[in-house]
Amino acid sequence: MPTDLTGLAPVADPGLLAPVWADTPVVAAVSDGAWLQAMLDAEAALSRAQARLGTVPAAAARVISEAARADRLDLAALARQARESANPVVAFVREFTAVVASEDAAAARYVHRGSTSQDILDTATVLVARRALTLIHADLERVEEALAVLAARHRDTLMAGRTLALHAVPTTFGLKAAGWRHLVLDALDKADQLRFPVQLGGAAGTLAGYLEFAPDTEPAGYVQELTEAFAAELGLTAPLVPWHVLRTPVVDLATAAAFLCGALGKIAVDVLSLTRTEVGEVHEPAPSGRGASSAMPHKRNPVLATAIRSAALQAPQLAATVLGCLPSEDERSAGAWHAEWEPLRALLRLAGGAAHQAVELVSQLSVDPERMRANTRLTGGQIVSERIAVVLAPLLGKAQARELLNEASARSARTGEPLADILRQDSRASAVLADARLTDLFEPEAYTGAAGALTDRALSRTPCSGDRR
Amino acid sequence: MPTDLTGLAPVADPGLLAPVWADTPVVAAVSDGAWLQAMLDAEAALSRAQARLGTVPAAAARVISEAARADRLDLAALARQARESANPVVAFVREFTAVVASEDAAAARYVHRGSTSQDILDTATVLVARRALTLIHADLERVEEALAVLAARHRDTLMAGRTLALHAVPTTFGLKAAGWRHLVLDALDKADQLRFPVQLGGAAGTLAGYLEFAPDTEPAGYVQELTEAFAAELGLTAPLVPWHVLRTPVVDLATAAAFLCGALGKIAVDVLSLTRTEVGEVHEPAPSGRGASSAMPHKRNPVLATAIRSAALQAPQLAATVLGCLPSEDERSAGAWHAEWEPLRALLRLAGGAAHQAVELVSQLSVDPERMRANTRLTGGQIVSERIAVVLAPLLGKAQARELLNEASARSARTGEPLADILRQDSRASAVLADARLTDLFEPEAYTGAAGALTDRALSRTPCSGDRR
Amino acid sequence: MPTDLTGLAPVADPGLLAPVWADTPVVAAVSDGAWLQAMLDAEAALSRAQARLGTVPAAAARVISEAARADRLDLAALARQARESANPVVAFVREFTAVVASEDAAAARYVHRGSTSQDILDTATVLVARRALTLIHADLERVEEALAVLAARHRDTLMAGRTLALHAVPTTFGLKAAGWRHLVLDALDKADQLRFPVQLGGAAGTLAGYLEFAPDTEPAGYVQELTEAFAAELGLTAPLVPWHVLRTPVVDLATAAAFLCGALGKIAVDVLSLTRTEVGEVHEPAPSGRGASSAMPHKRNPVLATAIRSAALQAPQLAATVLGCLPSEDERSAGAWHAEWEPLRALLRLAGGAAHQAVELVSQLSVDPERMRANTRLTGGQIVSERIAVVLAPLLGKAQARELLNEASARSARTGEPLADILRQDSRASAVLADARLTDLFEPEAYTGAAGALTDRALSRTPCSGDRR
Amino acid sequence: MPTDLTGLAPVADPGLLAPVWADTPVVAAVSDGAWLQAMLDAEAALSRAQARLGTVPAAAARVISEAARADRLDLAALARQARESANPVVAFVREFTAVVASEDAAAARYVHRGSTSQDILDTATVLVARRALTLIHADLERVEEALAVLAARHRDTLMAGRTLALHAVPTTFGLKAAGWRHLVLDALDKADQLRFPVQLGGAAGTLAGYLEFAPDTEPAGYVQELTEAFAAELGLTAPLVPWHVLRTPVVDLATAAAFLCGALGKIAVDVLSLTRTEVGEVHEPAPSGRGASSAMPHKRNPVLATAIRSAALQAPQLAATVLGCLPSEDERSAGAWHAEWEPLRALLRLAGGAAHQAVELVSQLSVDPERMRANTRLTGGQIVSERIAVVLAPLLGKAQARELLNEASARSARTGEPLADILRQDSRASAVLADARLTDLFEPEAYTGAAGALTDRALSRTPCSGDRR
Repeated sequence: MPTDLTGLAPVADPGLLAPVWADTPVVAAVSDGAWLQAMLDAEAALSRAQARLGTVPAAAARVISEAARADRLDLAALARQARESANPVVAFVREFTAVVASEDAAAARYVHRGSTSQDILDTATVLVARRALTLIHADLERVEEALAVLAARHRDTLMAGRTLALHAVPTTFGLKAAGWRHLVLDALDKADQLRFPVQLGGAAGTLAGYLEFAPDTEPAGYVQELTEAFAAELGLTAPLVPWHVLRTPVVDLATAAAFLCGALGKIAVDVLSLTRTEVGEVHEPAPSGRGASSAMPHKRNPVLATAIRSAALQAPQLAATVLGCLPSEDERSAGAWHAEWEPLRALLRLAGGAAHQAVELVSQLSVDPERMRANTRLTGGQIVSERIAVVLAPLLGKAQARELLNEASARSARTGEPLADILRQDSRASAVLADARLTDLFEPEAYTGAAGALTDRALSRTPCSGDRR
Repeated sequence: MPTDLTGLAPVADPGLLAPVWADTPVVAAVSDGAWLQAMLDAEAALSRAQARLGTVPAAAARVISEAARADRLDLAALARQARESANPVVAFVREFTAVVASEDAAAARYVHRGSTSQDILDTATVLVARRALTLIHADLERVEEALAVLAARHRDTLMAGRTLALHAVPTTFGLKAAGWRHLVLDALDKADQLRFPVQLGGAAGTLAGYLEFAPDTEPAGYVQELTEAFAAELGLTAPLVPWHVLRTPVVDLATAAAFLCGALGKIAVDVLSLTRTEVGEVHEPAPSGRGASSAMPHKRNPVLATAIRSAALQAPQLAATVLGCLPSEDERSAGAWHAEWEPLRALLRLAGGAAHQAVELVSQLSVDPERMRANTRLTGGQIVSERIAVVLAPLLGKAQARELLNEASARSARTGEPLADILRQDSRASAVLADARLTDLFEPEAYTGAAGALTDRALSRTPCSGDRR
Repeated sequence: MPTDLTGLAPVADPGLLAPVWADTPVVAAVSDGAWLQAMLDAEAALSRAQARLGTVPAAAARVISEAARADRLDLAALARQARESANPVVAFVREFTAVVASEDAAAARYVHRGSTSQDILDTATVLVARRALTLIHADLERVEEALAVLAARHRDTLMAGRTLALHAVPTTFGLKAAGWRHLVLDALDKADQLRFPVQLGGAAGTLAGYLEFAPDTEPAGYVQELTEAFAAELGLTAPLVPWHVLRTPVVDLATAAAFLCGALGKIAVDVLSLTRTEVGEVHEPAPSGRGASSAMPHKRNPVLATAIRSAALQAPQLAATVLGCLPSEDERSAGAWHAEWEPLRALLRLAGGAAHQAVELVSQLSVDPERMRANTRLTGGQIVSERIAVVLAPLLGKAQARELLNEASARSARTGEPLADILRQDSRASAVLADARLTDLFEPEAYTGAAGALTDRALSRTPCSGDRR
Repeated sequence: MPTDLTGLAPVADPGLLAPVWADTPVVAAVSDGAWLQAMLDAEAALSRAQARLGTVPAAAARVISEAARADRLDLAALARQARESANPVVAFVREFTAVVASEDAAAARYVHRGSTSQDILDTATVLVARRALTLIHADLERVEEALAVLAARHRDTLMAGRTLALHAVPTTFGLKAAGWRHLVLDALDKADQLRFPVQLGGAAGTLAGYLEFAPDTEPAGYVQELTEAFAAELGLTAPLVPWHVLRTPVVDLATAAAFLCGALGKIAVDVLSLTRTEVGEVHEPAPSGRGASSAMPHKRNPVLATAIRSAALQAPQLAATVLGCLPSEDERSAGAWHAEWEPLRALLRLAGGAAHQAVELVSQLSVDPERMRANTRLTGGQIVSERIAVVLAPLLGKAQARELLNEASARSARTGEPLADILRQDSRASAVLADARLTDLFEPEAYTGAAGALTDRALSRTPCSGDRR
């Protein structure tokens, strides 16, 4: 049955297949349109920077800056032409020059003066990334704040600590939430350490093209001033040297974004673990319609955690691609530069989407302390077997204590009898531990170790308030 | 300098950052719109399949099928709502049901009857993939044909064989092109072995929902017939069992697409190697404007090879993500299913774009046999040092022959003297090899081994002409 | 506090950090020692193949074959020397030639005759892989058999189907086990489709070196005969053309191994999900000491599933590395060839270890049908809400039925009242459904759809019994 | 032909397949033996830390510390037993306790007191990593110094700048080497920012086990003091909270190691590019035997660059695996923790091996300024076409200048005539540019832009001399 795809808008992908970022603010910030605007911003800033140094007339820079609006250009046509030069800048410069020329023919000759594709595209990438990071940062701060509230509120909420899928020893939900926040702060710190440098190197990193228009200057001074002026115009930083084939800034962006997805992924897998029907300790916020199934009326699927986890499953490999482009041969790689762009955008989208979903997930998470407490009772006291072993060891000898507990635990697991009862009936244990003492020892609440203190310590950490701009 | 992004179309990404697939046919085939149409195709086919079995009225199936047009739905709105259920199907079913109801209220109740989100989305994914593969296959066949021509034409075109960046021994361009074709045939074979099964399992793989509407049937027979009818309506295959958490079909798609990108990537890196200014043995087709630089008039950049290589750098990690989703817990994973979709689309785009660019690259590649021949002369005969060693070994003893050649090669490399001349002047060599014999031995043309025969063998392989539909 | 590492054996890594493969048969099969022996096997087979064709004396081939024992060489010294040529073959040939010479000086000149490093190392890799695959295949067959038993035994064992971490609708454990087996059969099929070709191309793929020693032969015939004889000696296949830079065989190995790890990973994540303390539906085999914790006597950690999952988390990225080496420039890549070796070995180890652990996991898995059944009762009937919705829809209208069930489900989840009781008390439902009918509808056993029939279908699939050798 | 593998040491892999790290110092530093010693160091330090706080007798801590020598344990047996608990610590504690008991039965009960497997293994991992990083750091510093020398020496050495495989505009080798150094400094900075924290959390991160032995203390103070004492004993840092499921430290290690491999990979691909036979601008150091081929006497393969590149091709995907383990569910993941270990070791090996090879590569790299200069002349002046375009634009109009140069460049490429000669003969150009001026403009030496100044700037950056311990 042939299907006619002719009528479809061929390229508009609003995120039908990407629940983690569909309808979140980062999408517009990293769209092709946003990149195009950033390319225009870069061209405009370059003309103003050159105007500051006297190599472009101020009036021309003004015309160029005013014309630098994405709606003056045909994005789809530019994308098509990107194929012809393996990058979108060649066609873009031609079309933008025509736009400027239509305003002021004299100004047009100052467009892209001395420049090269990579200077414009890399600078645009950094601009886009910085704008996306601003959104992400704000969401992460809200996540951090909500987690601080959650951790403080549940500082002493008992729950089962679980390792390798099984109850281990008791812990608290506060400590778990404080750990989540700790990871989020790590992600924020990484975001705060990112650099957002302009790219300015010319055709092969020597800035010869720019200098050709400034014949009477001293090269060292001119290129430094031009770089600084360019950076100042855009609110970016001036790098020590051109980084056209020294890709640390994009690698750092990629790994920071992947780290963020993984950090939020940790929260997601914990929420999923605690949401399971049999566990039921937390529930996602479920405003009208959220989490519904198409067929099962009872379902309130943990869709935020699911979406965030899907980001965490995709991000590491995208970061690997960007890392894999570090070995960028010669003065511009035939392919390694070009392979960075889409993975970088995908990472920003995943990170931005995950951060946005996480705000809602953690700020409205429903926590059920009663169920948490009840679950600690499920194993008939086995959850404190470590403690009993420690107490019995000096009384019976370490090996004998271990043997007794192995037997008793196996019996408890098999029969469902509480471990405490089995020990009470065992002459070896009852000979050395009074009944009341046993009862006390088996209180999970009494075996949370330093959970409260550690929660306090974790909460004492504050976000670095570095200026990312 | 703040930039207002408000006015930008937030989500239309026509490929500004993806020269490898911008403006190629695969883009429309795998767009969100194409996926939406495929979801509609799946719903329509499901209603018709049920109508065949009598569990949906034929008239209702007709209405549903006629309404199943993507232009009746608001794609962007659906994408936004995808966030609410971590998949696009829940909102889609609601909206599509309303469309059908607006035509025929009675028919609307048969939409998505007994079904579940995953049946629709997985089937749509397979439909989209098959349509994309049809395009890709056609392009690959053209690549294969062009390479067959190239290999045959240059069966005896001498060139330097290069290993670890250095001239090794002579080979032919025909053998190289035949090898490229061999890889392309491997990629075609992998494409031909792909299966395109419908997904039909219901909420948890038991088809209970579908059976509930067929109360008087025998389950085993009904589900098999329904699956086969559903497959027949779509031209897909009927799987043995639902594969909702047995993800072999999508993993195979992903690895086949990544293989294809890598196979074409081999061609690309070879073209780049041979295009280098100092080598100059091949040149990309350069119709007007192609490969131009924004600043350097002389440049004809190898942009097709660059774009294809950029696909080969991205694809393996995307395939890793899909492979990493195989461990899909329970009857539907909370995240692993969702993490497949975007990487799979990205792989289809990269494979489709790379295949399309490769057609042009190989069918119009300019080959310079003169330059190839000239380059074999660059090392003063060192390119046949292996042969000389073999010839001298029985005459001088293996060790002594090796020592002589090591000395002579080092001197040739240092001074630029031809190796043949050095040997002529060396009494050890001249004592055992007549001058004319030396001259003959140093002909690179005479040391291409079985290159011609191997080219013939490679060309004897034919594409499997399996029906991929 | 400085620690002296001097005394440590520097390089013996028996798997302390790799519980998934430590102490499994594959380790010896893919060790450096095994690779060295395979290199020797390749050299010996090459001499015998040449002897068959008359270009090496039979006696020399015999001496070479007898000397080809790994214990005659110093493995550690060879590894050290591998650094000098970026591959281990150059030093290996030198040392092995010396070993042969110590037996028979005349035979020594026939070692590695006409050959190149890559012919020996690639052929050795294929030999090692085939030997590892033989082990893996045998283990996979045992896994398949055990799963067939499990699926048949539990064909009608009711359990909760779970999607996105929550109970969805009922299913059976038999269907789940049958699905696991289905994936294992997919993995077996992929293993059976692997090709194990010798590599024979000489310095740049033309076999010129080999031909130099057969001056009076017709190249096409000689190289084909030599390749076939070489393959026959090793029990490998003869490729159509040398694949030194056409890396399909190693890519296929890598993706097949990664698929296998992922397929077993699916079993592992399901076992982990069902093992959770609150779920308790299956338990890993726990012979003495297995799964013990260092501190918690009650723990019986699901260590086999944990180890297998750890393989599934590592394998996809290793396969990506091998896929990423497909674009292997020129006639031998400077780096892409070399980057394949360790990831390929790691994949074989992970696949072999995971398969070996899986035998024990699935053949001794303890299944608790009572607990499975009990868990289906946990949600007060919500597990069949899909069915109730289907039944009520024609009685109340689809929308009203949905609304009623949404309300009732929410109340049931909130209060713990069984959904059936809530509906009984609701006049809308009680008006249309008799009490006894409601009771019947709420039986989870009565809503397993085609689970039994699908289990039968899945079990009807048989393993391909292709000969992998 | 069956091969008996029985006699082979099954597990000793000295690096036959890993030329990049075989025979380099990092191998011993990250071997299983090194990990075992680090586990012993952790146990010993834990006992001494507890002794400081009075919860273990000082005499017992002394006995434990003295017994903590890897040669007292059977590494292979421990590895085998690792399978039984999915980690090596359970068996290790048992065996080490027996060793201590053989010295002093009373001391044995203080081994691993209150502890858990993860505290020991994670702390050991950090110790191993820090030791490896110390080696790596020293090698990187030597690389940095050698590159500083190279950049300064060749500050004004003219060479072709190459983009997308083609000559672009002139640059200098000094600027290239300065860029390499810049990346190495980035790698050093990342190494310097790594944290090396002990792990101390007990069974589920609450330290309850440790506190059970300190019944009369205030938990908050005790756990902080214990953590700090433990850290002090090992020269590691005390983390704010246990990081058993907050895996930032290992992720940071992994990404820093992958960055390093990529940074050195950039140097490697450049060396390979410049080494090509037709380019011949640099040569690897070739001490006796280095880079030899097994069959071609003339070959001096760039084996160091090849090996380093092979590391750069492998590392990103290994880092992705570690990043992918961030979502570590519950209080200890069933698999995600276990999947980190081998990739982390592999990364340390690759980074350590690559750094070690890089020392030799860059400190002895042979640079050929004559050949570099000669190559800039290969294109008949096209290498400065950007400059000519800039000069002609105001004289002829931008569009006309571009058209003229497009024509002239195409003719030059086609015929081999120097671009300058073509322009001289063209009336449009000769009308506006005097002959002498043209000659000057075509000097590549005169168009290196700010290359010298940028080299100076890059060299002004100094390594951070942070203390990594």
